[in-house]
Amino acid sequence: MEPRVSLITLGVPDVAAARRFYVDGLGWTPTFEVPGDVVFLQVGPGLLLSLFGAADLAEDVDPDATGPAPAPAGMTLAHNVESAEQVDAVIADALAAGARLVKPARRAAWGGYHGYVADPAGVLWEIAFNPSWSVAADGTVQI
Amino acid sequence: MEPRVSLITLGVPDVAAARRFYVDGLGWTPTFEVPGDVVFLQVGPGLLLSLFGAADLAEDVDPDATGPAPAPAGMTLAHNVESAEQVDAVIADALAAGARLVKPARRAAWGGYHGYVADPAGVLWEIAFNPSWSVAADGTVQI
Repeated sequence: MEPRVSLITLGVPDVAAARRFYVDGLGWTPTFEVPGDVVFLQVGPGLLLSLFGAADLAEDVDPDATGPAPAPAGMTLAHNVESAEQVDAVIADALAAGARLVKPARRAAWGGYHGYVADPAGVLWEIAFNPSWSVAADGTVQI
Repeated sequence: MEPRVSLITLGVPDVAAARRFYVDGLGWTPTFEVPGDVVFLQVGPGLLLSLFGAADLAEDVDPDATGPAPAPAGMTLAHNVESAEQVDAVIADALAAGARLVKPARRAAWGGYHGYVADPAGVLWEIAFNPSWSVAADGTVQI
């Protein structure tokens, strides 16, 4: 198994609400969608984010599931930017699009500056400036 | 806010157990690590996966948190491959590395073939062959 994530699927309570946040609010363009059912958004080279109904995702994982969507371990997504000022600006953008402020931006112990917002389904996005983080032309990350 | 995920952080109950699975079991090479504390693995161009203690993640999100790690919406990670045979082979690899079989591989309603395994922390990985999924040289995904 090669080290590769192709798709991050969010099992959300309301696909339309998630779409309003990511597409109408943040202005991200769907790669593909089935109205009311699923929305795919490109979030990196070779990487899509999928907005999918929580019950549909639960059924996709286990067709015999009768309970709620699978509850994974704690998980967050991070969006890195190039400066502390950009962290503040992106958090303001996200809040304007309908996100909820979870952790106001502040200096971080690891030398950067970051904050957390939650999307309408409660998915946590860390908005971060990490001066030790760099991405080479071929996509290789160095810390 | 541009459409970009830089980092996926898994808040796991046991960083050493997570490391044994991803590094020793699957053979993925850490980009950077602080022994016993955090491990970063490259999983795409410009994209890292972080194995971090659940309590540390909860505290990173909210320094005043007294409860357990944040419980996001249901979320899965997908690893796409080029054929049904590769799905079977990767699932076998993951099980050999210590994953748990959640959904045995089968034909999917969307025209492909897939199954689900869970890592030691319960994080769900979908292993999928999707004949409608293609990635251009510049990283753009088409469905």
